[in-house]
Amino acid sequence: MANDAGAVFDVVILGGGSGGYACALRAAELGMRVVLVEKGKLGGTCLHNGCIPTKALLHAGEVADQTRESEQFGVKSTFDGIDIAAVHAYKDGVISRLFKGLTGLIASRKITVVEGAGKLVSPTAVEVNGQRYEGRHVVLATGSVPKSLPGLEIDGNRVINSDHALVLDRVPQSAVVLGGGVIGVEFASAWKSFGVDVTIVEALPHLVALEDEASSKLLERAFRRRGIKFELGARFSGVEYTDAGVRVSLENGKRIEAELLLVAVGRGPVSAGLGYEEVGVAMDRGYVLVDEYCATNVPTISAVGDLIPTLQLAHVGFGEGILVAERIAGLNPVPIDYAGVPRVTYCDPEVASVGLTEAQAVERYGSDKLASISYSLGGNGKSQILKTTGQVKVVSVKDGPVVGIHMVGARMGELTSEAQLIYNWEALPAEVAQLIHPHPTQSEALGEAHLALAGKPLHVHD
Amino acid sequence: MANDAGAVFDVVILGGGSGGYACALRAAELGMRVVLVEKGKLGGTCLHNGCIPTKALLHAGEVADQTRESEQFGVKSTFDGIDIAAVHAYKDGVISRLFKGLTGLIASRKITVVEGAGKLVSPTAVEVNGQRYEGRHVVLATGSVPKSLPGLEIDGNRVINSDHALVLDRVPQSAVVLGGGVIGVEFASAWKSFGVDVTIVEALPHLVALEDEASSKLLERAFRRRGIKFELGARFSGVEYTDAGVRVSLENGKRIEAELLLVAVGRGPVSAGLGYEEVGVAMDRGYVLVDEYCATNVPTISAVGDLIPTLQLAHVGFGEGILVAERIAGLNPVPIDYAGVPRVTYCDPEVASVGLTEAQAVERYGSDKLASISYSLGGNGKSQILKTTGQVKVVSVKDGPVVGIHMVGARMGELTSEAQLIYNWEALPAEVAQLIHPHPTQSEALGEAHLALAGKPLHVHD
Repeated sequence: MANDAGAVFDVVILGGGSGGYACALRAAELGMRVVLVEKGKLGGTCLHNGCIPTKALLHAGEVADQTRESEQFGVKSTFDGIDIAAVHAYKDGVISRLFKGLTGLIASRKITVVEGAGKLVSPTAVEVNGQRYEGRHVVLATGSVPKSLPGLEIDGNRVINSDHALVLDRVPQSAVVLGGGVIGVEFASAWKSFGVDVTIVEALPHLVALEDEASSKLLERAFRRRGIKFELGARFSGVEYTDAGVRVSLENGKRIEAELLLVAVGRGPVSAGLGYEEVGVAMDRGYVLVDEYCATNVPTISAVGDLIPTLQLAHVGFGEGILVAERIAGLNPVPIDYAGVPRVTYCDPEVASVGLTEAQAVERYGSDKLASISYSLGGNGKSQILKTTGQVKVVSVKDGPVVGIHMVGARMGELTSEAQLIYNWEALPAEVAQLIHPHPTQSEALGEAHLALAGKPLHVHD
Repeated sequence: MANDAGAVFDVVILGGGSGGYACALRAAELGMRVVLVEKGKLGGTCLHNGCIPTKALLHAGEVADQTRESEQFGVKSTFDGIDIAAVHAYKDGVISRLFKGLTGLIASRKITVVEGAGKLVSPTAVEVNGQRYEGRHVVLATGSVPKSLPGLEIDGNRVINSDHALVLDRVPQSAVVLGGGVIGVEFASAWKSFGVDVTIVEALPHLVALEDEASSKLLERAFRRRGIKFELGARFSGVEYTDAGVRVSLENGKRIEAELLLVAVGRGPVSAGLGYEEVGVAMDRGYVLVDEYCATNVPTISAVGDLIPTLQLAHVGFGEGILVAERIAGLNPVPIDYAGVPRVTYCDPEVASVGLTEAQAVERYGSDKLASISYSLGGNGKSQILKTTGQVKVVSVKDGPVVGIHMVGARMGELTSEAQLIYNWEALPAEVAQLIHPHPTQSEALGEAHLALAGKPLHVHD
């Protein structure tokens, strides 16, 4: 494919993860000549080191829990443990089928793929393996990698990050998870299902602290019931090796011993040494800065995905990639409303939301202008059948649209699809209440919340 | 509570199932004095003999399958069989919690509940236990019971209906299920999960024949893989007892031997001997006839739920009950668009839909005016993780709104909540395509189908 070097493309994309490949697919569809440069594997973090493998581990955990608790449902069985090699085989099987599909798709759209570490060398050019690829436009999509704290060294064995955790060849006896955000609680949840004694350490006052506080509290209650320990408002001060693993110290004086420490303090942009500053791209702490159309300060250069300071989610990357392709093609796309992007944390129970938290809504509208209802899954037949607990909380402007939906419970992530339409289409509670949801589904809880907000509660105690 | 006899109520409701109690709750909310007459238990068929218990059995079946197949996910376990008494205890536990919630709710809204077999005795009165209850309005909501075929006698032991199947104290070795509609395929699915050798006999050319033909075919393929046998286009001719159970004969000459025969040929209205004809209510083959506002030909009498010839679904009953309460209160409610009511068959895989089948859409719009896309769950990450197959099919008017959504796959029922908004709010594919669905969820399959219909396919092979 190096034959194409020297040709002028419409778009040169640096990075073949969610943002980059979505941009490539849409640009190709719109008739552009596209080159996609990737040093690892097409699909990037999401497919190989992020969304997909973690959700496979979480599902293996769900199967383990279901097997362990099957007698509650009348199914006699014996749980004999986790075969971690088989878990990885299952997970890798999912990845490889999706990878095969993606590479086929990229090929079928006639996108030129260049394997290698690319570098931005001008406002219109990327150099890879000594070859220069020129384009009318360049899209930066080099993604992110796990961060650590200053002075906290990841050794990949006893002190690990999510990349290591995804390929860990054993089920540890115990683990400390540093960070109670999305990544931390997902690993804590999967590991607990695998039988690991887990303690989460979080400096903020809550787990998944970006979510509505009610969701955080429900998750904390559920984790407590599951025996997942956590220290909130607790700052990490150091880690030392012991005979058995590690001893983690907190600023509050507590010491926690465990077989290993997983550092899950977030992900940072991959932008160092890639020529961005040299070409004059405006940046802030490693992130490439963009406007609402994902355009940088350099007219020919756009940036998408985890590299820019928007929500680090694969589907945000998809959306930004598509947006950029359509803008370059002159289609006049609508900017993304980031508050309207669904957020799902796939721990057990799941935490899912769209729109503003109640606190954000109060700040924007004032509490006297808002209405809010929390519908417990205790009244939802399907959730009772699944033996899950949690709630659906809906926040709306009084006599106005729904501005936030916050859900906790098994399988709640799927309900963000309806929640997303409600929020983004600025629906009134009464418009949703008009449509009776199918019985018995978990989606009825969303329906009940809207019925109640519309002043016509059905299965809601006064 | 018989103290209230003789008083004049605003509404007298005959039957405390989904339609009746929803009407009672909404009417009470609107300030009306309500009496609710029920001869069995509040909650009716749905809670005690329908939706809820069958879904509990199906979930126990899901747990059984997951346990049996846990090694595919890296979980070592031994499946030791079904403890049917424990399955019933689980199922009855769910019912009793929901029943307790419902009775509490009814009480909290100050609804007068009369236990006993009521009879319509005038356009404004119902008699129960020798007492007469007068109301400005009467709502008939006496529901339905399982039907049989002429000459086919249900003995409750070897030839049973769904009421018996729900309390069966053993897991049969084998069963013939007469009827491949919703009820038949749900029992066939749960029983197969329990280890029963099942054969479905269906007179129509397809299982779930009211669904889009593509959905029926996918279900048939999935059932074949699961080892659920079926005879399509096969008419029942008779059943005889054998030493081991029953021998079922078909008109095509086939004979099927099994431990029992489940007759699942649909449900018929409960209206005989209840005084409806005597009071002059117009009826057809046992169904009470109503207009789009659920009003009968007698001005003071309305009817809702399985008693009227609309879709026999609990949530339709809810919707009709609410509609009637609001109409009586003078609120001017909007009639129900029955095509827009979500339909879910909770077998494994689930079959779910909203709107028109492709055949119905072709009839209404002509095939040249339609666009249709089928997105395979093979390309959907979360479905791969769950190891389920199926598809999401979306039918739209060309350059117009979505008119039908048809889904097959594990957990697809929950996606009807989004599908319902799309159909009922007459969304254009491009409006849905603008919103990127959360990754990795099954709802992405809906998103991908709309992206493709909008002419901007993302993860779709050309």
